Amino acid sequence: MTTELVYSKQYTDLTREDLMQKVSEQMSDKRFQHVLRVEKKALELANNYQIDKEKASIAALTHDYAKERPDEEMIDIIQNEGFSRELLEYGNAIWHGILGAYLVKIELGITDQEILDAITIHTTGAKEMSDLAKVIYVADYIEDGRDFPGVVEARESAERSLDEAVSYETYHTLTYLLKNKKKIYPKTLETYNYWVVSH
Amino acid sequence: MTTELVYSKQYTDLTREDLMQKVSEQMSDKRFQHVLRVEKKALELANNYQIDKEKASIAALTHDYAKERPDEEMIDIIQNEGFSRELLEYGNAIWHGILGAYLVKIELGITDQEILDAITIHTTGAKEMSDLAKVIYVADYIEDGRDFPGVVEARESAERSLDEAVSYETYHTLTYLLKNKKKIYPKTLETYNYWVVSH
Repeated sequence: MTTELVYSKQYTDLTREDLMQKVSEQMSDKRFQHVLRVEKKALELANNYQIDKEKASIAALTHDYAKERPDEEMIDIIQNEGFSRELLEYGNAIWHGILGAYLVKIELGITDQEILDAITIHTTGAKEMSDLAKVIYVADYIEDGRDFPGVVEARESAERSLDEAVSYETYHTLTYLLKNKKKIYPKTLETYNYWVVSH
Repeated sequence: MTTELVYSKQYTDLTREDLMQKVSEQMSDKRFQHVLRVEKKALELANNYQIDKEKASIAALTHDYAKERPDEEMIDIIQNEGFSRELLEYGNAIWHGILGAYLVKIELGITDQEILDAITIHTTGAKEMSDLAKVIYVADYIEDGRDFPGVVEARESAERSLDEAVSYETYHTLTYLLKNKKKIYPKTLETYNYWVVSH
């Protein structure tokens, strides 16, 4: 499916191959293989749920763009580019989505807000999520390389409904964080309160 | 121990007996018996940790002052007395602490900020908690009438350290809320991130 995709130049002047090249330069091969699997899964979901495949491809390929940036560079960006100081209490697991959108915009010139928002919230979710954001959030969790207790159920939920998959992922992520006494970012709680409890 | 306690009139003009009377008028006898057990436990903890017993008694007796107020009255107060509208997304479980402090102040004339803060955060905890606030938060959780899996460990932790008891209670409360897919108030997460993870 992925090989047939030719970008329209609406969202980036880069070809898909150029974008893949630029992304691969930012990370280890192991992570890049994960990125390609997220794109594959995102395109499957985009196909099933009638979502723009080109945007799904671009958002998937760029979602971990900042994952291997040094902490010092990220801290510098938080302090000097108008991000909330509260972010300093967290680490790259939270930073790479929020700052990733910023870096994808300034370094790759991608300005489509829906794509940038999907990158921003791909690890925490959010109360307000576009279908594209849901696709990236879920594809990152269930791509074919993932193997954890519950991944089969997560994949099944994504077959039934994007919202159900968002809820499943959010609930299990929060449970994992709590069980391991990891710090929880407030936005993750907001996602839980909306998609797991109220929805 | 409780019967020996005579109020100094520093924090309220009421005698302890008058305050008990006023509190009992606000609630069922069953809840009032809980309040008396919280006071008993709070005085034990105050004794063990060298905390002002009079303040512990007053805060314990008034901590559930607003627990049986009708929702309509509480909603009216939230909307007209400058409270965050976000509170409207929650219910009495959250309101009765925050609005309780307000009602204790205006109806009972108790103005000591440490007592009011202890009432405010007694169900959610907070990042910043005085020893008095910790005592009320913990006493409410482990008073002699409580019976739930883990209550023995909670009581043991309170023998060792107030901070450990705050951490234990917060962790288990959050786990319970998540397991039952209950809405979680952001302040509860803040308490977890500070007292369970960082501390």
